[in-house]
Amino acid sequence: MSKSLVSSPVIKRLPRYYRFLGDLESQGIVRISSRELSQRMGLTASQIRQDLNCFGGFGQQGYGYNVSELREAIRDILGVNAGNKAILIGAGNLGRAVTAHIDFPKRGFELIGIFDSDPDKIGKTMSGISISNVNTLEEFCSKNEPVCAIFCIPKDAAAKLAPKLIASGVKGFWNFSHYDFKPDDDVVVENVHLADSLMTLAYGLNNYSEDSAEKK
Amino acid sequence: MSKSLVSSPVIKRLPRYYRFLGDLESQGIVRISSRELSQRMGLTASQIRQDLNCFGGFGQQGYGYNVSELREAIRDILGVNAGNKAILIGAGNLGRAVTAHIDFPKRGFELIGIFDSDPDKIGKTMSGISISNVNTLEEFCSKNEPVCAIFCIPKDAAAKLAPKLIASGVKGFWNFSHYDFKPDDDVVVENVHLADSLMTLAYGLNNYSEDSAEKK
Repeated sequence: MSKSLVSSPVIKRLPRYYRFLGDLESQGIVRISSRELSQRMGLTASQIRQDLNCFGGFGQQGYGYNVSELREAIRDILGVNAGNKAILIGAGNLGRAVTAHIDFPKRGFELIGIFDSDPDKIGKTMSGISISNVNTLEEFCSKNEPVCAIFCIPKDAAAKLAPKLIASGVKGFWNFSHYDFKPDDDVVVENVHLADSLMTLAYGLNNYSEDSAEKK
Repeated sequence: MSKSLVSSPVIKRLPRYYRFLGDLESQGIVRISSRELSQRMGLTASQIRQDLNCFGGFGQQGYGYNVSELREAIRDILGVNAGNKAILIGAGNLGRAVTAHIDFPKRGFELIGIFDSDPDKIGKTMSGISISNVNTLEEFCSKNEPVCAIFCIPKDAAAKLAPKLIASGVKGFWNFSHYDFKPDDDVVVENVHLADSLMTLAYGLNNYSEDSAEKK
């Protein structure tokens, strides 16, 4: 079955399956029915069966899913073992939090460099990695070939760096900036727009009523 | 037109319209055609017209949109002027970044309290707000009536606090934890699952080819 046929909403749910199965595994649970998994995850059982069928299907009638096997399969589909080389740009509060908060190897990445333009930050370390001058970015990329860049910088700085990084061979961006990548950039992008998320919450509160609270 | 009929994807796009219109406004642009707006935003013109029609429609045939008027209208729809009282729980790296990085009043919120359980953090200040003991949370809520809580804490801590906060009258959660709210919680939730986002990017890189790069 071709991977490229899998729809984006299914892909977006895979990390959640992966987390849930990890929780079950750490609780010593060996197998689970799609019904039980659905109750825990707040999805319908048929949704879960459909999702997992996109990848060839797992589980057996009357048995359910083997937790470890399913988790391993999803891990391989996600490429969580890939160790994609990543660099982070912007060693401010946000960059610091991302570096400290995220367990990169567990999510499929290896953080190999951090860059900033602020002379006060350059040379200091963050989570054990020395902060380099952003001027050395292209040289670093041609030598170390990172495939992923994490943008913890303002929009304008991102707009300047994105084409250079793409030219250097960066294929994926974890984008916390408000910079919008162009359709013909031919890169994979995961946007994390915190301010947008908070404004969406403002809308929800503005339109809140006991009956219409958004179900999650 | 009833607001509750507006679909979630439209609502999710509103903050982006709001940001773009703000950029245009700061560039001194007074009016814009839906075609030009669509080119800048990477949406189709008909998509934009459809989206804005959900709120009664703006813009005039042959004129386009008045940038300031449209921005103000979206601001009011989002409730960005509401000043929703919010508290943040978890003064670690992530909480610190959120506090430092987000301009709360600009997004419809007023941050009125920060809480943690770590004695080393309690009493210190973060962005000018003194960090309180999480034990005093319920007392604080009954006195100050925040409507929003920001979870920068692990899943287990979130699971313990969520019911208490809901009972205290909190209606909205900005949830950076992996805690999953229950459908009958009757609250509005915006989840920011950073690890899931990064794993989705891992999947994208794992399945990357020049032809199939996810368009953003």
